[in-house]
Amino acid sequence: MIKDPEAPAVDAAALRNGMALLAGAVNIVTTNGPGGRQGFTASAVCSVTDSPSTLLVCVRRDSSVGAAFMANRAFCVNTLGPDHNGLARLFGGKTPVETRFAGAQWSTLTTGAPVLEGALVSFDCTTSDFKDVGTHRVIFGTVQAVRAGTATASSVYFNRAFHSVPTSC
Amino acid sequence: MIKDPEAPAVDAAALRNGMALLAGAVNIVTTNGPGGRQGFTASAVCSVTDSPSTLLVCVRRDSSVGAAFMANRAFCVNTLGPDHNGLARLFGGKTPVETRFAGAQWSTLTTGAPVLEGALVSFDCTTSDFKDVGTHRVIFGTVQAVRAGTATASSVYFNRAFHSVPTSC
Repeated sequence: MIKDPEAPAVDAAALRNGMALLAGAVNIVTTNGPGGRQGFTASAVCSVTDSPSTLLVCVRRDSSVGAAFMANRAFCVNTLGPDHNGLARLFGGKTPVETRFAGAQWSTLTTGAPVLEGALVSFDCTTSDFKDVGTHRVIFGTVQAVRAGTATASSVYFNRAFHSVPTSC
Repeated sequence: MIKDPEAPAVDAAALRNGMALLAGAVNIVTTNGPGGRQGFTASAVCSVTDSPSTLLVCVRRDSSVGAAFMANRAFCVNTLGPDHNGLARLFGGKTPVETRFAGAQWSTLTTGAPVLEGALVSFDCTTSDFKDVGTHRVIFGTVQAVRAGTATASSVYFNRAFHSVPTSC
């Protein structure tokens, strides 16, 4: 059998099952400004460097959320504790944006992006750059303000479920 | 007092403390080829998209490890279970490269990058692109092969310590 050169190198199901084993913190990433208020749940968030203080977020390019993030040039990464798993589901589904935000209390720091009350930690960022990769856009942000909350555990998404990881071992 | 426009927006200690609260899977990222065999421990690993199957790794630009990764144009992300926390420390320190690799058993899949025996999951990648951000380089890889192992938990780095997260809740 001749292999189709356009065919993916890896079986899609095997890849998805493998990716599900790459644990990640659960975050609600928000934005507000000329492009409107938006927010979504993301585990594809990563710290890049502290010089200059930068983190990245991956978002679908064809989503309305993605368009708002580009228009507003700012976002806030709110890292969640286990008490916010319900909110993570709300921001991860098809729920209208106003209903999503009605599910919690929000404030702001520097950029105006919604900062979740009770988050484990929030990183308020201005967008510094982006890079398109296939279906997704990797958005880089410079941290303008950081606020640590009072949660005593992190919610971690691993093997298609939420897990609680305490701040002490 | 007039603020220095070159000054970081956020206090460095506050940023580091905040970043420490962003939980991440513990991975040993390896490479082999014309640039030599290298490997380092990284929690700054993130899945980007499954179309085309892509993940990213952040690495210091000025490191010898980074140079090898660029020369070899391939790498393997080995996601660790708690049994490999000692190995993660070995690959996260100043230990010479041969001593690092002597601490475990390795095989290969498609690219020739070292694949850790007993890893929770390994993603064997060809380098598709990169982007420099401050002190670091974000390296994007197309997954060429994936292998899930037999570990029953993930090692997660959170609040400056290793934590074990089981595959079942």
